[in-house]
Amino acid sequence: MVNAYASGAPTALPPESQELLRRRERVLGSPYRLFYREPVHLVRGSGAHLFDAQGNDYLDAYNNVPAVGHANPRVQAAVGEQLGVLNTHTRYLTDDVVDYAERLTGLFPAPLSQAIFACTGSEAVDLALRIARHRASAPGVIVTRNAYHGTTTAAAEISPSLGDGNPLPPYVALVDAPDSVRGAGPEAAEREFLAQISAAIERLTARGFGFAGMIVDSVLSSDGLRLEPAGFLTRAARLVRAAGGLTIADEVQPGFGRTGSWWGFQRHTADAPGFAPDLVVLGKPMGNGVPISAVIGSAEIFEAFGSEVRYFNTFGGSAASIAAAGAVLDEIAERRLLEHAARVGSILLSGLRDLAADSERRGRGPRIAEVRGAGLFLSVEYASDADGTPDPEAAVRMVDALRERRILVSASGTHENVLKIRPPLVFDDADAARFLDGFAEASAAR
Amino acid sequence: MVNAYASGAPTALPPESQELLRRRERVLGSPYRLFYREPVHLVRGSGAHLFDAQGNDYLDAYNNVPAVGHANPRVQAAVGEQLGVLNTHTRYLTDDVVDYAERLTGLFPAPLSQAIFACTGSEAVDLALRIARHRASAPGVIVTRNAYHGTTTAAAEISPSLGDGNPLPPYVALVDAPDSVRGAGPEAAEREFLAQISAAIERLTARGFGFAGMIVDSVLSSDGLRLEPAGFLTRAARLVRAAGGLTIADEVQPGFGRTGSWWGFQRHTADAPGFAPDLVVLGKPMGNGVPISAVIGSAEIFEAFGSEVRYFNTFGGSAASIAAAGAVLDEIAERRLLEHAARVGSILLSGLRDLAADSERRGRGPRIAEVRGAGLFLSVEYASDADGTPDPEAAVRMVDALRERRILVSASGTHENVLKIRPPLVFDDADAARFLDGFAEASAAR
Repeated sequence: MVNAYASGAPTALPPESQELLRRRERVLGSPYRLFYREPVHLVRGSGAHLFDAQGNDYLDAYNNVPAVGHANPRVQAAVGEQLGVLNTHTRYLTDDVVDYAERLTGLFPAPLSQAIFACTGSEAVDLALRIARHRASAPGVIVTRNAYHGTTTAAAEISPSLGDGNPLPPYVALVDAPDSVRGAGPEAAEREFLAQISAAIERLTARGFGFAGMIVDSVLSSDGLRLEPAGFLTRAARLVRAAGGLTIADEVQPGFGRTGSWWGFQRHTADAPGFAPDLVVLGKPMGNGVPISAVIGSAEIFEAFGSEVRYFNTFGGSAASIAAAGAVLDEIAERRLLEHAARVGSILLSGLRDLAADSERRGRGPRIAEVRGAGLFLSVEYASDADGTPDPEAAVRMVDALRERRILVSASGTHENVLKIRPPLVFDDADAARFLDGFAEASAAR
Repeated sequence: MVNAYASGAPTALPPESQELLRRRERVLGSPYRLFYREPVHLVRGSGAHLFDAQGNDYLDAYNNVPAVGHANPRVQAAVGEQLGVLNTHTRYLTDDVVDYAERLTGLFPAPLSQAIFACTGSEAVDLALRIARHRASAPGVIVTRNAYHGTTTAAAEISPSLGDGNPLPPYVALVDAPDSVRGAGPEAAEREFLAQISAAIERLTARGFGFAGMIVDSVLSSDGLRLEPAGFLTRAARLVRAAGGLTIADEVQPGFGRTGSWWGFQRHTADAPGFAPDLVVLGKPMGNGVPISAVIGSAEIFEAFGSEVRYFNTFGGSAASIAAAGAVLDEIAERRLLEHAARVGSILLSGLRDLAADSERRGRGPRIAEVRGAGLFLSVEYASDADGTPDPEAAVRMVDALRERRILVSASGTHENVLKIRPPLVFDDADAARFLDGFAEASAAR
């Protein structure tokens, strides 16, 4: 992880936080990482804000899980109440999981009409892979070069962003995300992307792995937020379909309104009425932090899998998680968070672009190659020269400089040179102003 | 699943339940199964009791997830309160996950001193497999013939109980659980079990798959609850260790006091002081229905994995789940549920054995080959003759006959001829009396 605390490094944290850090390293151990050169010790959250024990207020511009806000009262009440009534699994007939499944599938185009619930995005990705591979009787899948899809064995196998300690099996083919900074324009980027898809299908088939399909984050989050040219994912999905594979839209990050639409894939289907991915994977913000995830698909695809391979997830779709998920939909609807994400996102996008232009004009601060955004998902790509040569050090320095100003973001991208800005959907105008001020300061400080 | 509702079959449920069933089949679809020939439509729970919309009281003698009781007020309060304060992930420094991890690892013998949190037993199994396979640079593992370890791709691959639709890869070697009914006594059963372990290690190595280790449910739940001769799993673990593999104790079902001890593996280490499994997998009852699971291991084993392969689970160890898990430990301690499980379990065990002896003496009711039990985990094995020939129909008929009497159990075992009795730990004397009366009635009714 690019912006992690280096285990054992000195910090300026208060003594009680340092003691907690030592205890943590003893009992949680080596697989765990903390964010930031100087970790953050949190005790409380509210809306888009987090607080440490000294009462300092941190602006959360990173966490998409608490989409409807840290400590959201409606989610709290719904879960608290449900835990006093019933919280059991889906092998009994219960009302709430059916009500919610109808409500959720109602947000998707035909033929996406059924849901299977799990607990985490990783589990949902893993299940979607099982379904696609069962259908094809073949393991071959396509993913993007710096994709992250999760942490089970099968999900890690398709997550090249996990790095060298996590080698990929030969039945996983990589394609480069369209590069809007160093490429020859959007049309060329798409042509190149589609050519890679075709070549990958051919390669997997030639090597005897067969072709189960493609799984792709609808906004290519871990590849650095790749958005243009809108529609390229649908045209890639058509190639996948023609070769007999399924397209799995990983909506764990873009889903539930982040881009200003319900789902990230809608950005790519606007010009292709009636087109939908074959399977959709949902997670993170679905229960605002209460573990719940889902795979959405057609009755036909689920039937082919379910008639031969039953699926049961003990906690998946249990009543308390469903209560949280229902409260999230209520909040999104009543607070009009899709419109809100689009509006505040555009303030951030134009604000960041203005700061980038200003910084370039004055020749001050790190060089920004591009600012991208879709709703409340934004990225700032740093380059060391006019050719767009990736500058990961600039990105990490900005992450830490923002953290010093109590603004929380992270870095990602194939070259780790992209600032990842992905706040709770309730991030408001004052939060955006504070973010832009902090960003200007952090840029100038360097 | 042996005792599932057959999709589309007529039921005598009230009209509103039938309508819910139709809606459910439309939106959840084919991968889902409902328990019982006649499904149960639940609206409320309390302690070891569940209620339908008509107010009928069902005795829950099956669910281990709500270990400290359906709708437990302490869990409800802890989670409800935490959701109003903070519910974020482990990449920030927070107190509660460290406090709980210390408390939890304190319940294990050395060198099991570290925890990694996930959300489901499947995720924890999957992670334990990743750790063992990473260590060995080899995929070969041993599991029992009817094991169930979960539902991710990797967990399903080691779950032969999922049936023919879920073929096992060649690097998974099966061994038969010791058979106390049809075997030649406990010593012979153990000899046979250990010989199979040695042969499986040899076979995996000879075929080039290498040997990563053995994963085994400490009470062999899905193999029909195989308990004797106590110690056989430790002796098997010594063979595994000598061959360079890790032993993973799957405590998802036996863990957290079910057997009257904290962990099922303690049954097998009583005569081997200082011996511990290499990794322990925890799940189901850990958060009383709030999704949380864990892998427990030594600093040495976690370091070897974590230094090369980081692990992050967004919801794993988040504050609300940790609050639930802490409340479960409080309840187990204050209500002395280990002692309680041992005491009420022994009432059920001797009651069932009396009923079996009585039924045999009178030549009435289905033939019971054996009644087994450890604390509040019990099984009744049905056979069609004195040689112990499995009688799965008898088991399924008993499941449905008990359900008619509003007593909820299930069936399992290699031959699906074993009644699985695994109630919440708060199952009390009155519940035990009601269960034994119902069992006698259901047996006589047939």
